[in-house]
Amino acid sequence: MVGQRFVSLLARHPWFEAKWLAASDRSAGKKYGEACHWRLRSPMPASARDLEVDECKAGQAPQLVFSSLDSKVAGEIEKEFARAGHVVVSNSSNHRMDPDVPLLIPEVNPDHLALVRTQRKERGWQGMIVTNPNCTTIGLAMSLAPLERAFGLAKVLMTSMQAVSGAGYPGVPTLDILGNVIPYISGEEEKVERETQKLLGHLAAGRVRPGDFAVSAHCNRVMVEDGHTESISVALRQKATVEDLIEAWRGFRSLPQERELPTAPRHPILVREERDRPQPKFDAEAEQGMATVIGRVRPCSVLEFKYTALSHNTIRGAAGAALLNAELMKSEGYLD
Amino acid sequence: MVGQRFVSLLARHPWFEAKWLAASDRSAGKKYGEACHWRLRSPMPASARDLEVDECKAGQAPQLVFSSLDSKVAGEIEKEFARAGHVVVSNSSNHRMDPDVPLLIPEVNPDHLALVRTQRKERGWQGMIVTNPNCTTIGLAMSLAPLERAFGLAKVLMTSMQAVSGAGYPGVPTLDILGNVIPYISGEEEKVERETQKLLGHLAAGRVRPGDFAVSAHCNRVMVEDGHTESISVALRQKATVEDLIEAWRGFRSLPQERELPTAPRHPILVREERDRPQPKFDAEAEQGMATVIGRVRPCSVLEFKYTALSHNTIRGAAGAALLNAELMKSEGYLD
Amino acid sequence: MVGQRFVSLLARHPWFEAKWLAASDRSAGKKYGEACHWRLRSPMPASARDLEVDECKAGQAPQLVFSSLDSKVAGEIEKEFARAGHVVVSNSSNHRMDPDVPLLIPEVNPDHLALVRTQRKERGWQGMIVTNPNCTTIGLAMSLAPLERAFGLAKVLMTSMQAVSGAGYPGVPTLDILGNVIPYISGEEEKVERETQKLLGHLAAGRVRPGDFAVSAHCNRVMVEDGHTESISVALRQKATVEDLIEAWRGFRSLPQERELPTAPRHPILVREERDRPQPKFDAEAEQGMATVIGRVRPCSVLEFKYTALSHNTIRGAAGAALLNAELMKSEGYLD
Amino acid sequence: MVGQRFVSLLARHPWFEAKWLAASDRSAGKKYGEACHWRLRSPMPASARDLEVDECKAGQAPQLVFSSLDSKVAGEIEKEFARAGHVVVSNSSNHRMDPDVPLLIPEVNPDHLALVRTQRKERGWQGMIVTNPNCTTIGLAMSLAPLERAFGLAKVLMTSMQAVSGAGYPGVPTLDILGNVIPYISGEEEKVERETQKLLGHLAAGRVRPGDFAVSAHCNRVMVEDGHTESISVALRQKATVEDLIEAWRGFRSLPQERELPTAPRHPILVREERDRPQPKFDAEAEQGMATVIGRVRPCSVLEFKYTALSHNTIRGAAGAALLNAELMKSEGYLD
Repeated sequence: MVGQRFVSLLARHPWFEAKWLAASDRSAGKKYGEACHWRLRSPMPASARDLEVDECKAGQAPQLVFSSLDSKVAGEIEKEFARAGHVVVSNSSNHRMDPDVPLLIPEVNPDHLALVRTQRKERGWQGMIVTNPNCTTIGLAMSLAPLERAFGLAKVLMTSMQAVSGAGYPGVPTLDILGNVIPYISGEEEKVERETQKLLGHLAAGRVRPGDFAVSAHCNRVMVEDGHTESISVALRQKATVEDLIEAWRGFRSLPQERELPTAPRHPILVREERDRPQPKFDAEAEQGMATVIGRVRPCSVLEFKYTALSHNTIRGAAGAALLNAELMKSEGYLD
Repeated sequence: MVGQRFVSLLARHPWFEAKWLAASDRSAGKKYGEACHWRLRSPMPASARDLEVDECKAGQAPQLVFSSLDSKVAGEIEKEFARAGHVVVSNSSNHRMDPDVPLLIPEVNPDHLALVRTQRKERGWQGMIVTNPNCTTIGLAMSLAPLERAFGLAKVLMTSMQAVSGAGYPGVPTLDILGNVIPYISGEEEKVERETQKLLGHLAAGRVRPGDFAVSAHCNRVMVEDGHTESISVALRQKATVEDLIEAWRGFRSLPQERELPTAPRHPILVREERDRPQPKFDAEAEQGMATVIGRVRPCSVLEFKYTALSHNTIRGAAGAALLNAELMKSEGYLD
Repeated sequence: MVGQRFVSLLARHPWFEAKWLAASDRSAGKKYGEACHWRLRSPMPASARDLEVDECKAGQAPQLVFSSLDSKVAGEIEKEFARAGHVVVSNSSNHRMDPDVPLLIPEVNPDHLALVRTQRKERGWQGMIVTNPNCTTIGLAMSLAPLERAFGLAKVLMTSMQAVSGAGYPGVPTLDILGNVIPYISGEEEKVERETQKLLGHLAAGRVRPGDFAVSAHCNRVMVEDGHTESISVALRQKATVEDLIEAWRGFRSLPQERELPTAPRHPILVREERDRPQPKFDAEAEQGMATVIGRVRPCSVLEFKYTALSHNTIRGAAGAALLNAELMKSEGYLD
Repeated sequence: MVGQRFVSLLARHPWFEAKWLAASDRSAGKKYGEACHWRLRSPMPASARDLEVDECKAGQAPQLVFSSLDSKVAGEIEKEFARAGHVVVSNSSNHRMDPDVPLLIPEVNPDHLALVRTQRKERGWQGMIVTNPNCTTIGLAMSLAPLERAFGLAKVLMTSMQAVSGAGYPGVPTLDILGNVIPYISGEEEKVERETQKLLGHLAAGRVRPGDFAVSAHCNRVMVEDGHTESISVALRQKATVEDLIEAWRGFRSLPQERELPTAPRHPILVREERDRPQPKFDAEAEQGMATVIGRVRPCSVLEFKYTALSHNTIRGAAGAALLNAELMKSEGYLD
């Protein structure tokens, strides 16, 4: 699903173009139009249909390579590409927590990109690996970043209701999820907890010191196609009101907005005032799927505040995230 | 939906029999078989089909009356019945928080039933009103009661994923929930927070002192037919381990089990060990829908422990709850 | 739902503008933004938000009036508006089968519009009523028209799998349709059978002689948001091959295409070659929801050919249909 | 899914017991409780949990063997077992249309069982293969059998709306079917058409002459867990009324009922009078999932009559079907 989103987003991208596609040996040698069981509602871009799927080897690849490889193989392959001089912008989980690999959301921690200097130096690579977080982490971290900046974070408790597209294709069997909730997604809670701390951590001396706050996640799968909904409670370090939080979110702008990067949402965070929003059906596509939509901001009697956040898991949470990372890198001169 | 569950459960009840049905004026005078748009998978009991639906007046009613009236009208009607000498066992929300009305889960706070003495004395009633909690509260309170007993509760944070049957019939429009999550249920979070404290509170001098712990709820609607799933985090007053919690839950027995009340589950709490349970599809019907099923017990880095709990919202959470209340009352001599 | 589609389509219409909205007394006097529980994924047009909802009386209305009133009231109100001089372009079922009221699909029977001359003469009206067919009829009739033209129709047997949006809002309760099929839609089969014959009938001497072929419909509701899928078998009067049928469909163009009416699809009929299409998820939005998408064309051992057809029930099947009717009328000089 | 139904039904069977389980090499050697990802709502029978899964070889197997093997391998394996003397009662499609293999529904064509004599003689086998039809064929053939007996069949046109459990597990990906209809199931229409004619054919001189009527099928997948719904139109050879059809269905009894075979439904066909039944949600489980439920019987203007039929696809349509075949065989003396 993420690969298809990449193809779809690149087809109308002003800076980048999909020139080379690689996949498992099973697909190598086929046209993309044949190898791929297209599952997006918008049709497969004509430009992608005839691209030949190559083997996953660095040889023919262009400078910039997006990776959404299965984590079973991504680790080694991504290193191989970086070693061979490619800029690997990865959505895979393997290297996210490597101390010298940036885990990046351009609105949240663009300065962490500088980690690649450490990375190249220590590993002796011409290329580099840059990662974006897990689809569930992104919406959470987007909603937390303005709070951390303005008030300091102390505690974060998040329960997710995640869309099936997050599990890829074929992914979740209908017999598992029809009329059901699955209160478990393998490895997800650990990712959310660690990645959030790294994203909101501070870069110093070529290392990221994790954010100094506790994070706990409950991850659930529900029968939604796209859009992860999160019920979030937070405790802050400084006094604030519900209005202060809303103001912090509404006023949140960052580098991607200032530089008008092509995939950047004009408003990275939208706050809805209806009592029953955000909802995946109506809000997942906000700002072309790149906004995080927040609603139901109110006091929490256990922590301090609670709210609901939603973001599109395969756009803001995956392919769009990687694309925005690449745009940031280009605007910083890392790409020709 | 709750009314239909009452009819269905009473049809095979060893002690009680549905002899009299009342509803809105619109249905009065019709046979139940005609007035009711039966929505349960099990067929309408033959014994109910020909019962004539009466007006909602105390005159013809038997001693014991179950109420699942709309909260717009339940308040006055239930008082009228109690004044006229009936034992009103209500699933409606109106009187739950009245200081002299028992809010009762027989496994959790059977001693609170004694509140009816205050109630009858102060109000001068021959009859009485006894209530059960909201469908979302019950699963939560069932899971908390053994923890409160064994370790003391300090903080409770709960996010629910609630079934559509909780909204009655016609209830949730398909266009609202198909492929969607609705992060709001009117009045639900307040009910869960206050009712949980009353249920786990202490009765003294004819009043309930609410439990001394904080509760915060996020309530969401998902596309599930029956069974509310809850992601719960707790902090306790005494040291405990994950194993201690599981032992407390597995060992939990109470009056309904001791007295073998007909609707009582043999195991009020079941703990599943699979990493992805409980799930509404597989666990909502456990113990005829009367068990609370718990799983995924693990440490929580913000509070202390986290777990998932599930219970059937129209059985354990409504009709079955009221029935068990009535059974407790009979076993205590409140019914002829 | 159809009203919302009207508002949505008119907001970006080059010829028409929503200037006046009327609804039941309950909504009258409110802003549309308050009166309407907007259920489309695309946001409510800003232009509609502040329109005041009027009573359903002819007084303030503009010349052209679209009606998607409930059939309980549409009959009289539409006549009242026509009598008062308005051009009523209706999606309601009441007058569809009136002998002097055009039942119109601009691609199928644009000549039937001339019926309004009979209508105005016989009824002495300044205005007029023009109708479009039922949402299930439209896809069927679109697929049949090129076959009737090219080969003559003898028999038509259609089984529909209809989307919930066809039942309006709140419409189908989730408890009725979750994981279910409902093999009945009140009045639908009769409408499909009679309307198809009128649409494909011949206008002569101010009357429509119904098409000389048998039609039988099975109508079912399934859990789909938008897009009615139809399994269709036909027998023809002349010899034809599967390729002939496909050619007839692919070559089908009509007045709306020739005149480039704004809402007209460029290709009124699309034929897909994948073995498993059309599907509501991928095909309902084809040509902005105005195309009928056909697939799986193959021989039928009982009649002669069988195929699957799909069209968007609230666009091509309702609001878009009426809009295209109005565009045809404007291009024919019936509107100022 | 069918294997799980076998295990579930055998656990409470009065005549047979699951003593030996075989599956692919991948599972061989494991306990069933570990090898199987149990997907039924009722829990895995305790008796099955510890059975060791064997390789699919004839050696250790008991006399009676049920097969629901994948059709990629079933062909050869089933022959090997029959050659080795086993009675293979198969739900797989491979041998259904073999001229000397009975395709059997005990209520419909119990006399076809005699084909095994031809089979054993011609093939020189000690054992034998007996098959039941495809899950979509069974409901259709059950509804047609009483009509063929009473009035003779001329034409049959069927459109199915099939449950996802028919595709096994993991089966249909959620991303394919959520809010969607898939108008194609590989090989299904051909199976339904040919199998129905064989089932309702006549056995003479050791061969089955197919029924002398035309059958055409449209097969669709919808988002239902269990229960195939079919919209059926028929033309008969003799005059009949709607009441005649209903009488023929209601009066339908056959050998399994006379002999009170354990899995036989008391009423093989139920006719519902509500205008909107049968529905999978309410009717799939009728008579423990072994009844075919019919409703909406009415005239058809293209053929002669139309109606809706429903049957449970993994019980009556698969595991229950095979079990009933085995019971018939035991009652006929084919099993020790």
